[in-house]
Amino acid sequence: MTTTLPTTREDAAALDAASPLAHTRQRFRVPDGVVYLDGNSLGALPAGVPARMTDVVEREWGEGLIRSWNDARWMELVGRIATRIAPLVGVSPADLHVGDSTSVSLFKTMVAAARLQPGRRVLVVEPSTFPTDGYIAAGVADLLGLELRWCDPADPVASVDSDVALLSLTHVDFRTGAMYDMDAITAAAQERGALVQWDLCHSAGAVPVDLTAAGADFAVGCTYKYLNGGPGSPAFTWVHPRHQGATQPITGWMGHAAPFAMTRDYERAPGMTGWASGTHQVLALSALETALEAFDGVEVAQLRAASLSLTDFFIRLLGERVPDLEIVTPLDHARRGSQVSFRHPAAYGIVQALVARGVIGDYRDDGQAFGIARFGFTPLYVSHTDVYDAVEHLVAVLAAGEHLDPAYAERNAVT
Amino acid sequence: MTTTLPTTREDAAALDAASPLAHTRQRFRVPDGVVYLDGNSLGALPAGVPARMTDVVEREWGEGLIRSWNDARWMELVGRIATRIAPLVGVSPADLHVGDSTSVSLFKTMVAAARLQPGRRVLVVEPSTFPTDGYIAAGVADLLGLELRWCDPADPVASVDSDVALLSLTHVDFRTGAMYDMDAITAAAQERGALVQWDLCHSAGAVPVDLTAAGADFAVGCTYKYLNGGPGSPAFTWVHPRHQGATQPITGWMGHAAPFAMTRDYERAPGMTGWASGTHQVLALSALETALEAFDGVEVAQLRAASLSLTDFFIRLLGERVPDLEIVTPLDHARRGSQVSFRHPAAYGIVQALVARGVIGDYRDDGQAFGIARFGFTPLYVSHTDVYDAVEHLVAVLAAGEHLDPAYAERNAVT
Repeated sequence: MTTTLPTTREDAAALDAASPLAHTRQRFRVPDGVVYLDGNSLGALPAGVPARMTDVVEREWGEGLIRSWNDARWMELVGRIATRIAPLVGVSPADLHVGDSTSVSLFKTMVAAARLQPGRRVLVVEPSTFPTDGYIAAGVADLLGLELRWCDPADPVASVDSDVALLSLTHVDFRTGAMYDMDAITAAAQERGALVQWDLCHSAGAVPVDLTAAGADFAVGCTYKYLNGGPGSPAFTWVHPRHQGATQPITGWMGHAAPFAMTRDYERAPGMTGWASGTHQVLALSALETALEAFDGVEVAQLRAASLSLTDFFIRLLGERVPDLEIVTPLDHARRGSQVSFRHPAAYGIVQALVARGVIGDYRDDGQAFGIARFGFTPLYVSHTDVYDAVEHLVAVLAAGEHLDPAYAERNAVT
Repeated sequence: MTTTLPTTREDAAALDAASPLAHTRQRFRVPDGVVYLDGNSLGALPAGVPARMTDVVEREWGEGLIRSWNDARWMELVGRIATRIAPLVGVSPADLHVGDSTSVSLFKTMVAAARLQPGRRVLVVEPSTFPTDGYIAAGVADLLGLELRWCDPADPVASVDSDVALLSLTHVDFRTGAMYDMDAITAAAQERGALVQWDLCHSAGAVPVDLTAAGADFAVGCTYKYLNGGPGSPAFTWVHPRHQGATQPITGWMGHAAPFAMTRDYERAPGMTGWASGTHQVLALSALETALEAFDGVEVAQLRAASLSLTDFFIRLLGERVPDLEIVTPLDHARRGSQVSFRHPAAYGIVQALVARGVIGDYRDDGQAFGIARFGFTPLYVSHTDVYDAVEHLVAVLAAGEHLDPAYAERNAVT
């Protein structure tokens, strides 16, 4: 910033007015009095979801009953949702499956990757990744007699040698918001003979992702964060067409070539249908399908521009108003997700005091002396004015010492 | 029956009036003009679910946002649901997990069973079981280098020898409604050193089940049939306490002893919490929790008495009105689930013609010359009058030849 004038709320409003996504906020129900900066944990409620849920429950289930598997096209839900997610991650809808939890998706793809590389006995995971990725890898390693290797977060490819079957990384770190260079890492690890999987939980719908261009092998991602599918909504699994015939260990009837023929022997369906397991969750998928309509007409480039504008604005305001803060999110756009985090001795108390004021972010511990306060910026519904107000509240919290309230003492590093 | 007088609709109404479950029908929304005999495929809509879904979507998700994981007690959903299902299957709530699909539940328990019996390399499954059971067993066998062995449905224990790790059976057959003697089979197979798993998809909420008395090892069951949880609602998994520390292969973060500590290494939670994998589906579990309130104050013995009264009545009416029908469901109460099926050359057409009249059952092929029409009787909302009306419609269908409509010719064995 070259200006020395303090940034004002009018500046925020001007940025909002100029945003090409100004119109998408009305696609959500964000409660009055709330500045919601936790869409990276649970996305806000898309405005069309309540009516859709009433319809699926009362008409499709209640009146249609079993007939709705055909009449309400429940069987096609997975494919329709794949069509909406695919452009957000740079793939063909035919190469996506939707329906498992992220953990089950990781399990399936990790087993598949290991079986594709029988001469390689190591799975590499990054130690600060979202924990379920490492936990699942540990379970797969135990089940298949493999080794789990933790890499250096700053240089994951350094751990990839000729023993490595799979390098599995989270694209955007859930604590810091740091983003990996997907293209470069994928190419370098594949050069060493490893397959590469990307966890897109903190990427899909928030930052540009082009799995096809990166030439990745596998990807998974959740849908309840920036995709706003609702609490516990199903995850997606992407498998490069070259691997779709690999072992999928949970061979349930929905992955059968003809599930309703109900024959004794398993005959795997071609393509991603063969990655399905049990009956899909109609209520959750219906909510998700409607939620994804919030992306109608929105280009990923617009999302990214809006996201960077919001995170830049937050960082600039923090620099002006709380200049000593240890921001742990990369300032470099190329390394930044749609989130800004800072480390602070009273990070827990800061988050709690902000929540009490209606500014919702969250707190993450990573075992270091000071914890992390993190704030997610969903460009579809977060405005620059929200960002301005959040920083105003933060300044007020710090000025009044609200973050040092004895109620937070147990989890603050200072009291 | 000793009477020779034809059974009348008044007889049906008298049976309904005398039923101790006459009051539970109002706990469901069964559409006017529909006789719903397919609750063994998808249960009817419990009356309280629409309001619960509106509340969980609009208030808990929309207004509470991420705070609802605590404030709306989403973390406790699984345990609360376990408390409601446990008495229906004769177990302690602490020994149940709820949240995966039946297929994923089967995968977890089959892997666990195999790992508990490393010297035994065979999984035994019954060939006419619901197909996902056999398909999952085939996948587990492939993954772990085991053998899948098909038993004689009439004598499953005969296939259990000293190589068998697990005998996995479906308690009530999805096509015929035939029910196994859980106690005797469990004891006989365990005598031969095998573990025993029961699939309760067609049992829970419909027939008495006492896993504890049977001394079974594992059980799974779905919740969208007789438990009325809604399309694709999550399954339950029961593991005898003596096996709860066995390998659970999908070691996701919700099975961690301290998921929100987000430590690098997996530390399995004790008991059934350690059987969880990913984030649970809040919308689906919320619907299920409210759906289970339909069982409030209902004893399993009452359910069974009402179910047998309904199936007896259906069989008696068929005997009077359509005497040549080949009923494939056991007449012996001890061998009968809550379903009656018959085999017929035009079974497909019969089912379709009945559906056109608002009498909803369904059709299942099993590879034999003639298919099966099956009718499920959910004692909470099916009445004897429904049964009477269904048979009246069946008589009318057969009299008018509606089942031989050319539209059904492709799947009928006669035209």
